[in-house]
Amino acid sequence: MKLWLFGIYGIVGTTAIAGNKAIEKGISEKTGLVSELPDFEGLANFSPLSFDEIGGHDIRNIESNLYEELFKHWEENQHFDYRILKQLKEDLEKIKAKKGTALNCGEGVLEELKPIESLENENLSLEEIVDKLEKDLLEFKDEETVAINVASTEPTIEYDENIHGNIENFEKAIKENKKEKFTASMLYAYVCLKNKIPYANFTPSIGSNIQALKQLAEENNVPHAGNDGKTGETLVKTTLAPMFAYRNLKVLGWMGYNILGDLDGKVLAHKENKESKIVSKDKVIGKILGYYPYTITEINFFPSLKDNKTAFDFIHYEGFLGTKMKFYFTWDAIDAIVAAPLVIDIARFLNFAKKKGQKGVIKELAFFFKSPMETDIYNTHTQYQMLVEWFNKLKNEG
Amino acid sequence: MKLWLFGIYGIVGTTAIAGNKAIEKGISEKTGLVSELPDFEGLANFSPLSFDEIGGHDIRNIESNLYEELFKHWEENQHFDYRILKQLKEDLEKIKAKKGTALNCGEGVLEELKPIESLENENLSLEEIVDKLEKDLLEFKDEETVAINVASTEPTIEYDENIHGNIENFEKAIKENKKEKFTASMLYAYVCLKNKIPYANFTPSIGSNIQALKQLAEENNVPHAGNDGKTGETLVKTTLAPMFAYRNLKVLGWMGYNILGDLDGKVLAHKENKESKIVSKDKVIGKILGYYPYTITEINFFPSLKDNKTAFDFIHYEGFLGTKMKFYFTWDAIDAIVAAPLVIDIARFLNFAKKKGQKGVIKELAFFFKSPMETDIYNTHTQYQMLVEWFNKLKNEG
Amino acid sequence: MKLWLFGIYGIVGTTAIAGNKAIEKGISEKTGLVSELPDFEGLANFSPLSFDEIGGHDIRNIESNLYEELFKHWEENQHFDYRILKQLKEDLEKIKAKKGTALNCGEGVLEELKPIESLENENLSLEEIVDKLEKDLLEFKDEETVAINVASTEPTIEYDENIHGNIENFEKAIKENKKEKFTASMLYAYVCLKNKIPYANFTPSIGSNIQALKQLAEENNVPHAGNDGKTGETLVKTTLAPMFAYRNLKVLGWMGYNILGDLDGKVLAHKENKESKIVSKDKVIGKILGYYPYTITEINFFPSLKDNKTAFDFIHYEGFLGTKMKFYFTWDAIDAIVAAPLVIDIARFLNFAKKKGQKGVIKELAFFFKSPMETDIYNTHTQYQMLVEWFNKLKNEG
Amino acid sequence: MKLWLFGIYGIVGTTAIAGNKAIEKGISEKTGLVSELPDFEGLANFSPLSFDEIGGHDIRNIESNLYEELFKHWEENQHFDYRILKQLKEDLEKIKAKKGTALNCGEGVLEELKPIESLENENLSLEEIVDKLEKDLLEFKDEETVAINVASTEPTIEYDENIHGNIENFEKAIKENKKEKFTASMLYAYVCLKNKIPYANFTPSIGSNIQALKQLAEENNVPHAGNDGKTGETLVKTTLAPMFAYRNLKVLGWMGYNILGDLDGKVLAHKENKESKIVSKDKVIGKILGYYPYTITEINFFPSLKDNKTAFDFIHYEGFLGTKMKFYFTWDAIDAIVAAPLVIDIARFLNFAKKKGQKGVIKELAFFFKSPMETDIYNTHTQYQMLVEWFNKLKNEG
Repeated sequence: MKLWLFGIYGIVGTTAIAGNKAIEKGISEKTGLVSELPDFEGLANFSPLSFDEIGGHDIRNIESNLYEELFKHWEENQHFDYRILKQLKEDLEKIKAKKGTALNCGEGVLEELKPIESLENENLSLEEIVDKLEKDLLEFKDEETVAINVASTEPTIEYDENIHGNIENFEKAIKENKKEKFTASMLYAYVCLKNKIPYANFTPSIGSNIQALKQLAEENNVPHAGNDGKTGETLVKTTLAPMFAYRNLKVLGWMGYNILGDLDGKVLAHKENKESKIVSKDKVIGKILGYYPYTITEINFFPSLKDNKTAFDFIHYEGFLGTKMKFYFTWDAIDAIVAAPLVIDIARFLNFAKKKGQKGVIKELAFFFKSPMETDIYNTHTQYQMLVEWFNKLKNEG
Repeated sequence: MKLWLFGIYGIVGTTAIAGNKAIEKGISEKTGLVSELPDFEGLANFSPLSFDEIGGHDIRNIESNLYEELFKHWEENQHFDYRILKQLKEDLEKIKAKKGTALNCGEGVLEELKPIESLENENLSLEEIVDKLEKDLLEFKDEETVAINVASTEPTIEYDENIHGNIENFEKAIKENKKEKFTASMLYAYVCLKNKIPYANFTPSIGSNIQALKQLAEENNVPHAGNDGKTGETLVKTTLAPMFAYRNLKVLGWMGYNILGDLDGKVLAHKENKESKIVSKDKVIGKILGYYPYTITEINFFPSLKDNKTAFDFIHYEGFLGTKMKFYFTWDAIDAIVAAPLVIDIARFLNFAKKKGQKGVIKELAFFFKSPMETDIYNTHTQYQMLVEWFNKLKNEG
Repeated sequence: MKLWLFGIYGIVGTTAIAGNKAIEKGISEKTGLVSELPDFEGLANFSPLSFDEIGGHDIRNIESNLYEELFKHWEENQHFDYRILKQLKEDLEKIKAKKGTALNCGEGVLEELKPIESLENENLSLEEIVDKLEKDLLEFKDEETVAINVASTEPTIEYDENIHGNIENFEKAIKENKKEKFTASMLYAYVCLKNKIPYANFTPSIGSNIQALKQLAEENNVPHAGNDGKTGETLVKTTLAPMFAYRNLKVLGWMGYNILGDLDGKVLAHKENKESKIVSKDKVIGKILGYYPYTITEINFFPSLKDNKTAFDFIHYEGFLGTKMKFYFTWDAIDAIVAAPLVIDIARFLNFAKKKGQKGVIKELAFFFKSPMETDIYNTHTQYQMLVEWFNKLKNEG
Repeated sequence: MKLWLFGIYGIVGTTAIAGNKAIEKGISEKTGLVSELPDFEGLANFSPLSFDEIGGHDIRNIESNLYEELFKHWEENQHFDYRILKQLKEDLEKIKAKKGTALNCGEGVLEELKPIESLENENLSLEEIVDKLEKDLLEFKDEETVAINVASTEPTIEYDENIHGNIENFEKAIKENKKEKFTASMLYAYVCLKNKIPYANFTPSIGSNIQALKQLAEENNVPHAGNDGKTGETLVKTTLAPMFAYRNLKVLGWMGYNILGDLDGKVLAHKENKESKIVSKDKVIGKILGYYPYTITEINFFPSLKDNKTAFDFIHYEGFLGTKMKFYFTWDAIDAIVAAPLVIDIARFLNFAKKKGQKGVIKELAFFFKSPMETDIYNTHTQYQMLVEWFNKLKNEG
C-alpha cells in the first residue's frame, strides 16, 4: 500500500515516515504501533507495515526533501536516537513533497511557516487548486493508497448548509471560486474521497467532517475517519475518567493545562487556530461521566519545550460522605513520538476497511481520535474493545 | 439484610457504617457507592442499601461503642463534615463489638493496638475460640447476613497442604489446637462459611483463600470473595496500565511509593505484616501488560498524614523510535473514605449472589480487590464490565 | 496595642483574629507567626502578641459579628480544627464591623459580595465618606493602633499626577468629590496616615502606594508598608529562583498556574480585578534572576477548592553544555491560613517601627509582600536577613 | 592551572572535561559554572577557566582514552547536544587515565565496574600503591594543580583513632600494610595533601575527612574541601527548608525519594555503599530547621533512567491554627550535567585559596557540598553569601 500525507514536512509526518523506515530496516522496534499488537494479528495480510511509496503535500520548502526537513526537526528536538537518524538519510532523501494549499489556514500558520509556498499564492482559482491537488494524487495513487492530514490546526469555519450540506452544492461552490467557504483540509479531503482514496483527519481541522463530504464518501464507497489524533493528555483523560465513573466518585473539577513549544504551539497561540483544539479536548470529560463538571482546558505556548508537550492535570473529586480528594498527573511526552505511529496505524486500518468493503465514517477508529466522528464513545477502553471487535469481525468475513 | 464486620472499630468499619447511616438519614449522598450506579438498578430489590442490623468483632475497647470509636478516628482525621457526624451519635451508640481474635496477627497489630482484648488471651483453645465466634454470629445472623473482614493486615502464614488443603484436616487441626497453623482471618472465614454466611476478605490477609475453605464454601453453597480492597493507588494503576498496553507503549519501569500514617501504616511498618501487602500491590502491572517491567512498590509510614494516604507514581515508558517518555501521578486521598463504601458494595453483591444461588469464589467481584481470587483479570475496565454483565445476567434469571 | 482591619469580615481577617485569640487562650500554638521566631526576641516588649482591642470596616453584613462571619467561612472551608472554633465564640461575638467603602472596587467585588452595604451607597460625598471613616477610627484608636487592609483586590486605577502626586491636590480632589480618582484602599490609607495610624496594604490594591500618601506619611511621621501579602506561590518562587541564580543555571521558562475557589478567586475571575494581581506575581522572577525569562503567570477560578489555593509551577532550565532540565512544584495550601498570621506580624512590626521613630515606607518589611514598595529586593532570604538586621538595629537603639 | 581527577573516566569526570573544552572552543556557554558569575569577577586572574593539562586515575579501561569513555556514557545518555560532542574528539582523545586504586571500595564498585584494573590487584603493598599514585601525580603536577575525587561512593569505614587520629600513625599503618584501615579516597587525599596539591572530595566517601589528613593539610599549608557534591535534591532541600523556618511553619515530615539508573545507582543499590550517601542527604533538614522532623530519605535504582536522576519530595507542614498543608516537588535532572561544572568551580576556588595562602579545610566552600566539613551552615543562601564574602575578602587582600 501507499501513504500520502498532507503536511508531510511537519514533525509528525517526517517522524512517522522515519519510524516506518527504521522498522523496515530493522533498526527500531515496533513500539507505539497499535496495529502491531497481537490483538490485530492478520492485519498485515491486508495492510502491510511497509509502504510501497510515500508522498505528500506541503506548503514550505518545496525544493527540499524529507530527510532535510526531518533533520531540521531533529536538530531542534533530538527526539530520537541519533544512531537511527544517521541510517535513514538515503531512504528519506528520495521523498519530496508536492506544493499544497494553505487556504484559510489562519494567521497562525501563515506567519509561523512563512515563506508559504502554496497553490493559492499562485493566483489559482479554487477549481485550479483542486485540479492541481488531484493531479498530484492521481499520479501517485494505486488501489491501496491512503491519505492522512497531519497539517497544522486551521481555524474553525462557519458551517454553511447551502454549501457544506451536500456534495452538489459543494462542487458548485468550488466552480464559483467561493474561497471564503473552504479550507485546505476540506479540499484535501474532497480530492481524496472523490478519487476513492481513504482519508483521515489527524487534526481538529474540519477535513471530511461536513455533510457534503460524508455524502461523497458514502456514494463513492470510501472509508474515512477523524478528527484530531488522541495522542497525549486527552488519551489519559479518557482512560482515567471512567475510573471515577465506575466508582461513583463525583468529579468536582478537572483542570488540564497544556504547554508546548513547537509549531503546533505557535499556531495555537493564535486565537482563531486555538479554538477548535480546545473544544476538541474539553468535552471528553462530560461525555464519559454523563455530567459536565467544572473544567479548565488550556493550551499555551512555552517556547523552550519545543515538541516536548507537557500537561498538568488536577482532578478534584468527592467521595463517600461528601469528602473531597485530589488526583494530579503530569504528562511529559514528545508530541511527534506519540502521534507518529498512530498515523501509520490509521492508514493501515483504513486500507483494511476499504478492502473489506467499509464505506463512510469508520466510527470504530474512535480509539485514535479526540473528537471521533459519529459516535459518543470516548472511553478509551471501550474504544479499544470496539476496534478489536470490529477488526475480528471483518477479518473473519469473506 | 444484616452486616457483620471483623475489625468493626477500625476507621474503615466505623466510616462505612457512618456513611451508611448518613445516607439512610438523608444527610449524605450516595457518592462512592458502586452498587448505587444506574448500571446496577434493581440490586436494592435483593440487597437494600439500609441494613437491618450491624455488628462485628474487634480486639480492643470492647466496652466502648461504635460512636465513641468513630469519634476517636474522627478527631484524629476530621475526615468528613462535622455536621454529619453530630447527627449520627444516637444511632451509632447502639452498635457494640463482640470480643474477637488476633491469633497470629503479628507484632504490628499487637503492639499498635495494645491493650489487646482477644479471645486467645483468655487461654481458650482453638476450638473454644471458634465456638465463641460462632456463638456471636449465630445470635446475630438472619438469612441475609453477610460478613466482611476489615481488620488489619496479618503476616503471611506458610501454606501447609496437610492442614489447609481440605476441610476435614482443617477442622481436625482446630480440634488438635494447632494454633500456629491458623490466623484470625482464617477462623473468621471458617465460622462464616460453616454457617452459610457469605464472607469477603477486604484485607490482604489469608481469609478464605485456602483450599479447605474454598471447599467448605462450595459444599455449603455459600459465596465468598477477596482479597484486599482495591481502593487507591492500585485502582489507578489498573486503570492506567491498560492505556500503555493498548497503545503498544513499552513500560520500562513503574515506581509506586505510598505513604500513610494511620494504624494501617503503623502495622505495615512491621516487616512481617508488610510483605503480603506489597506482593498484592506489585504484581498487577505485569498481569495487565503481559510482561513484567522493573517496578518499585513501597509502603512507608508517615505519621502526620494519618489516614490521608498518598501515593507517588512514576512511569517511564518507551514509544516510537525507542524514545523514552514520562508520566507522573499523585494520589492524595483519605483511605477510609475510598474504602468504606466498597465494604457496603461487596456485602450487597454477596447477598445478591447468595440469593441467586451462587456459591464459592465470586470472581466477578474482582473489581473490588487488589488480588482477586481465581481470575487473572486485573484491568479495572474489564473487571467493571464483568461485574455489570454478571449482575444483569443473574438479575434476569429466575 | 489595637488592630483595625479593612475588610475584617473576610476569611483572612476573621482567621487572623481567630488565631490570635486561640493563642491568647492557649488552645493553639504560635506556628506561622514570624514575629514569634527567636530572631525577633524582644519584639513583644514593644508590640505584644495580644491586642487590647480589634475592630474594622466591612461592606457587608454590618449587623453581624465576627464569630458569625468566621463561622460562615469555616462551614465552607473547615480550615482549622473544629475544637478550636468552638471555644472562640464568646470572644469573637463581641467584635463588630463598621460600615466601610467599596469605592471603585470593581464589578468583581460588587457582584460577588452583594448586597453591598457601603458608605457611597448612602449618597455621601467623598468628603463625607472620609469623615465617616475617620470618625470610626478616631473613636477606636489609641497611641498604639495599626490598621491593615485585607479587603479584596481592586482594579488598578490610572495614576493622575495632578491628583495623586501630592497631598494638597489629593485633599482638594476629595473636597471636589472627584470620586472617579479614588478607590476604597486609598481612602482607608489616607484616613490612617492623616491620623498617624500606621497602615499596611495586604492586597495588590493601590493603598498608600501613591506620591501624595507617601508624602503624608513622611510629614506625619507615620510608617506604612505594602503591597500584597506574599503568602503562597510567590513565596516559593522568590525562595527558589535564587538557587538557579547562584548556580548559574539559565531559566528558560517559568510557568505558574494558580487555581482557587474562594471570594478572592471569584473577584479575580473579573478581568479588571485580576490585572493588578498578575503583574504583582509575575515580575518577581526577573527581579531575582537579573533577566526576564519566558513566564506564564495565571490565576483561575476553581470553585470546589474554595480557599484551598493550589499552584502548579514548572521551571525549564538549562545547565552545563546547554542541556535542558526540569523542575516542578505544587503548592497546596489554605490561603487564609498562610495569610492570617502575616497580618498580625505586619501590625506588630509597624507598631514597633512607629515606636522607634520610623516613618514613611518601611522597606525592610519587604519579606511580607509580593510587591514591596521602594525596594528591588525580592529574594526571600535576603528579605528575611534585612528584616532581622533592621529589627536588631532598632531594638538596640535608644 | 592543571586538573587531576580520581575516577576520571566516570560520567561526571568526562562530562566536566567535555564542558570545559567546549567552552574553551566557544561551542558551549558558561551556564552552570558558579565561578563565572559576576559575583566572582576577578577569579580568572588567579584560576583561569581553561586548564593547561588534565589527567587522572581510574580503575577500568586503562588502555582507553577520555573521548572513548565519554562516548560510551554519551551513547547511553545522549546527555548533551551531539553537535558539541562531535567537535571534542581530537582534544579528548589525548587524555588518558593512569591506573588507580579501588581499595575497600565495596562490592558495589567491584561488581559494577568489573573487570577492575587497580593497583591492589597487582599484589602491591599499601606503601607500593601509595608510591605509584604519588609518582603519577608528581610527573603531572605543576605549582597550580588541583585534584578532585569524582569516583564512586565507598562504604563507610570504621574510624580508628589509633590510625586515623594523627598523620604519624597514619603513615606508620601504611608502612605496616594495614589495608583494612584504608580506602581508595583516603590514599588519594593523602598523596595530594602530602605533595601540597589541594584536594576536594566530591563524593560522600571519607577522603580527607579524618584527623590525620586534616593535620597533614594544616602542616603542609594545603587547602582541601568536601564532602559530596550538592547537586540535586539536596540543593533544593537546603534552598527551600529555610522558607519554612523563616515563616515559622512547622515541618511535620519531609519525604525525599530518589531514583537513578546509572553506575552511581547501581553502586548505591549495594547496601554498604548506600549508607554514607543517605546519612549525607538526610541530616540537612534538621540542621536548617533547628529541629528534626520525621524524614524519609531513600535512593533507589531505576535502570531505565540511567543518569537522569529524579527526586520526589513531599513536605507536610503545619501552619497557623495547627492546619496541615502540603508541598510537593519533582527534580528531574541529568546528574552529570548538574555535577560536572561544580568540579571545575571547586578546583578553581581551591587553587585561588592556595594562592591566597589558605590552608586546611576551606569551610567557605560549603555551598558546593551536601556534608560540608567543619561548618553547620547548610542553608544554600547563607552558604552562597559566605562564599561571595570570602572571595571578595581574599581577592582584595595582598
